[in-house]
Amino acid sequence: MENGVAKMETPTNVTIKGILGLLMANLDYENKKKVISLGMGDPTAFSCFTTTSVAEDAVVDALTSQKFNGYSPTVGLPQARKAISEYLSINLPYKLSPDDVFITAGCTQAIEVAISILARPNANILVPKPGFPIYELCAAFRNVEIRHFDLLPENNWEVDLDAIDALADHNTVAIVIINPGNPCGNVYSYQHLKKIAETAKKHKIVVIADEVYGHLAFGQNPFVPMGVFGSMVPVLTLGSLSKRWIVPGWRLGWFVTTDPNSMFKNAKTVERLKKYFDICGGPATFIQAAVPRIIKETSDTFFMRTLDILKHTSDVCMKKIKDIPCLTCPTKPQGSMAMMVKLNVSLLKDIHDDIDFCFKLAKEESVILLPGLTVGLKNWVRITFAAEPSLLEEALERIKTFSSRHSYDTNGYI
Amino acid sequence: MENGVAKMETPTNVTIKGILGLLMANLDYENKKKVISLGMGDPTAFSCFTTTSVAEDAVVDALTSQKFNGYSPTVGLPQARKAISEYLSINLPYKLSPDDVFITAGCTQAIEVAISILARPNANILVPKPGFPIYELCAAFRNVEIRHFDLLPENNWEVDLDAIDALADHNTVAIVIINPGNPCGNVYSYQHLKKIAETAKKHKIVVIADEVYGHLAFGQNPFVPMGVFGSMVPVLTLGSLSKRWIVPGWRLGWFVTTDPNSMFKNAKTVERLKKYFDICGGPATFIQAAVPRIIKETSDTFFMRTLDILKHTSDVCMKKIKDIPCLTCPTKPQGSMAMMVKLNVSLLKDIHDDIDFCFKLAKEESVILLPGLTVGLKNWVRITFAAEPSLLEEALERIKTFSSRHSYDTNGYI
Repeated sequence: MENGVAKMETPTNVTIKGILGLLMANLDYENKKKVISLGMGDPTAFSCFTTTSVAEDAVVDALTSQKFNGYSPTVGLPQARKAISEYLSINLPYKLSPDDVFITAGCTQAIEVAISILARPNANILVPKPGFPIYELCAAFRNVEIRHFDLLPENNWEVDLDAIDALADHNTVAIVIINPGNPCGNVYSYQHLKKIAETAKKHKIVVIADEVYGHLAFGQNPFVPMGVFGSMVPVLTLGSLSKRWIVPGWRLGWFVTTDPNSMFKNAKTVERLKKYFDICGGPATFIQAAVPRIIKETSDTFFMRTLDILKHTSDVCMKKIKDIPCLTCPTKPQGSMAMMVKLNVSLLKDIHDDIDFCFKLAKEESVILLPGLTVGLKNWVRITFAAEPSLLEEALERIKTFSSRHSYDTNGYI
Repeated sequence: MENGVAKMETPTNVTIKGILGLLMANLDYENKKKVISLGMGDPTAFSCFTTTSVAEDAVVDALTSQKFNGYSPTVGLPQARKAISEYLSINLPYKLSPDDVFITAGCTQAIEVAISILARPNANILVPKPGFPIYELCAAFRNVEIRHFDLLPENNWEVDLDAIDALADHNTVAIVIINPGNPCGNVYSYQHLKKIAETAKKHKIVVIADEVYGHLAFGQNPFVPMGVFGSMVPVLTLGSLSKRWIVPGWRLGWFVTTDPNSMFKNAKTVERLKKYFDICGGPATFIQAAVPRIIKETSDTFFMRTLDILKHTSDVCMKKIKDIPCLTCPTKPQGSMAMMVKLNVSLLKDIHDDIDFCFKLAKEESVILLPGLTVGLKNWVRITFAAEPSLLEEALERIKTFSSRHSYDTNGYI
């Protein structure tokens, strides 16, 4: 072969990390302003988001015991699978088995496993718009077609179910539901999730339930796992310790067959899944070994504190955004760590789209927001509100100043 | 779709973990013998193989600093990439850049990345026989054809270079070289590696240099990394902390473009690689953060101690095997942690192949060996000699008793 790799197409997808890297490179350090990034879903950058000492101690103890320096089974350490199956079963009308749980290197690897295991010639997967770009990237590498359905901003970012009916065909293998939602901050009601499940059942497709933000719900709707409807339609539940325990760098996630009637998982599928995990290279054994204690000993106080901060910071965002004419938020976020805000460029004299807005904002105000185009919505921006409240206020104040400076009508500003 | 996943073919590959699981299930606990597994390449099961406190302390400190609970760049933490590039450059005639290093969840993920990034329609990869089954499994999942070349047992398990010429065609994208070798215990000379590089260059194929056992050489030949010939032919170097630091469960590996003339890595390939890493979910950030200290502070005494034990235990194996007529080892192992031993079933009255030998051995003597078929050689067995010396002696004594009991001629035994 000659330069075989160069011949392969590189997926053209924009990645969040890629665009954030460009934005960071566009900062102007001359302006002496402290850089405030509201671009990425990593709360550990802010000191008010620190994991519990319970989790840290459990990992240190597992490591220093020297019992967990060896390989774990590639599907995961039995005690970790058991602990996660019990943890997830609390919110389900049936009990998961430890065998339903496969331990992954973060939710990213769980996504990769889900797409890879469903891939077959001509397969397509339905993903939300706006959504999370890793799905698209993964599908591109696995030759799976992506079809987008809209989330409806005026309707709590609910799924446009009619669009599903129009998109699904006999090659559709799955629908992706991210709840609590990234990038929209949605938390779906039981009734809406039920309708999604019914739609998936009608089309005989699997639901990939991305619940990496599971339990991070602080609004009207409580968090309901998609697995509640697992008896109706097979659900692949993806999750991790990353967000709820504020340890995204620990890379401890799970891929779970939430499928009590074994509609998805037959002997052959399970064998295929197990073999797929043999090539994955999952998370460190000693981190897995800490999972039972982490789940058992973390106090509700820790979880409540995180929710209180997120509720507060999302409120700050909503309030401040109301004062910025070119930005509107159609739906108050109810969960996760991010929200989508609509940008009205017609009010701005020298900014032509969301990309331009974010690059100029980075340069002039040292504030990083994610252009909506990255997650599928042109002329929107994603704001991560998992940030130190004072910094968030400061950032929004700068955005206000910036927007005012670039507006046709600056009356009443600055 | 209907049962879409079930329609997909499950790779038929036998996996090491699969067969070891079956062997463990076949143990007879009634015989009261302590189970001794020489089946898997995980030395942490034996107390004489313990990692250095330097490594453990570095990880604990990185974790408890609370600076590394967040995401790392998906290609790896800069300081870890730098440390690994410097570590590998010591043995190369040129200097690697940190950008050449991509951090992976163990060497397994590095293999997966290598195969996936080279995959294209009709591609084939040349892999050694005997070899490491993960390559086959990975290739099956990525629709890459595998073509086997022989390693020559009577010739220090060197590559049959004529076979390469016969196998390679315009769809061949790479050749896999495992050195120091698993399952054979080979350590290739500079001259032989040079010939391999020349052959790869002739066929314009990339060398995937699996050096997970790098530096674990205790015989006549010193360990020479394949990257030494990186100026001649592009080399993808795969490695990890797993074996040399005796921490396979930490899942800290690397995929390195050892390609100083950028024959393989052009702008497009690098972009594709970076995007591929976005879907991978690598190792924990705090373990990555510990890498510079682990590499810098580990003493030569620690490495020498491991080599001394492995030299001793491999000698024990060679000596004991000479006393077992149905087993012969054509080549003394010079490195890694395993060796291949030939089984002469014609001397055995009621054992018909390596699988039968290993299953009966497990049941009757509670000793686990890996059937050669698993790594591509029928009627051979793989013995992992990274074991407590006294247990290894005990295991080989039991194998002797077992072989004698099943031999046509039992004179001189028991």
